[in-house]
Amino acid sequence: MSEKGQLIVVSAPSGCGKGTILAEVLKDDSFYYSVSATTRSPREGEQDGVNYHFLTREKFEELINSGSMLEYAEYCGNYYGTPLTYIDENLNKGKNVILEIEVEGAMNVRKLRPDAVLIFILPPSMKELRRRLEKRGTETSEVVEKRLAQAAREIKCADKYDYIMVNGPLDKAVEDFKTIISAAAMSCENNKYLIDEVLENA
Amino acid sequence: MSEKGQLIVVSAPSGCGKGTILAEVLKDDSFYYSVSATTRSPREGEQDGVNYHFLTREKFEELINSGSMLEYAEYCGNYYGTPLTYIDENLNKGKNVILEIEVEGAMNVRKLRPDAVLIFILPPSMKELRRRLEKRGTETSEVVEKRLAQAAREIKCADKYDYIMVNGPLDKAVEDFKTIISAAAMSCENNKYLIDEVLENA
Repeated sequence: MSEKGQLIVVSAPSGCGKGTILAEVLKDDSFYYSVSATTRSPREGEQDGVNYHFLTREKFEELINSGSMLEYAEYCGNYYGTPLTYIDENLNKGKNVILEIEVEGAMNVRKLRPDAVLIFILPPSMKELRRRLEKRGTETSEVVEKRLAQAAREIKCADKYDYIMVNGPLDKAVEDFKTIISAAAMSCENNKYLIDEVLENA
Repeated sequence: MSEKGQLIVVSAPSGCGKGTILAEVLKDDSFYYSVSATTRSPREGEQDGVNYHFLTREKFEELINSGSMLEYAEYCGNYYGTPLTYIDENLNKGKNVILEIEVEGAMNVRKLRPDAVLIFILPPSMKELRRRLEKRGTETSEVVEKRLAQAAREIKCADKYDYIMVNGPLDKAVEDFKTIISAAAMSCENNKYLIDEVLENA
């Protein structure tokens, strides 16, 4: 309804398939993916400026101090944050801007930007999440257990989001995601301005 | 996402075209229209049990006292209320139950049923609303002015709803309405139970 794009925050436990859904959604060019910044090291195959902006601790703190981060959080000893650049620029162009961030960051965005819609993506079950993590075969069973424990902690925070969707079949998940965005454009928060517009046009 | 249907509250100023949208939506039999009760007299063409359950003041107060009304309000000297019968029965069958009620009643439902999704339908403009009311040709200009003033009061309460949609072209409005219902089925309020389900299935 609103001509501005929708600010979207997506969180999901690692291994949940969030990346697959977002890759599909981003084929639609009304969506813009805001690349997060982090001080953690790139994993194999990760590219700077694509998966993350990989920054030194010094550079990251410089950006915090100059007010260039919408929000940031420290997580497992590394900074993760959302650079402000491009966010409002793309919203004003009518693009839906996706921020892929973890729970603490999401709650910070909620406070700073009440217009944001917060979506939590659940795995079908913890059993299925374990299967997916083990299938990757890249991590020791100790790491898998740690990730599952972390996932459970994150999932318990899902009730702080606006919407909760389950990642089942990909087509359904992509459709669910887009349905939420279309509805969010009609949320009260985003459409209060219409009340005055309608009343003034008398 | 949830297997239960969605409880939907719809409000809109008189003359806004809400009835036309709902008639279209109700062609889809996953929707169930909960007929309100009132003590006001039927208008020409209105049928008992279809437009309203037309009740005497005595009968209405009897239903209030026996706890058979989800909510009720007095409005322009008449009672309007939502009989509980059939609501949960239909929700449990997976039907989306539509309650068409005015602002005060909607706020009462919000308190009693936090799972309800509240939708306010705006006219494109007050100018257009005036045009529609005058086109009916059934009311004196004094009544039209009264209805417009009442509409303005109601529209000012739209910011208390979950979603605000504009009634423009019918196809678009029906699609918007259904999009909201699909998204509402994924709202946090309706899906908190999934968090435990996912965690338990480990």
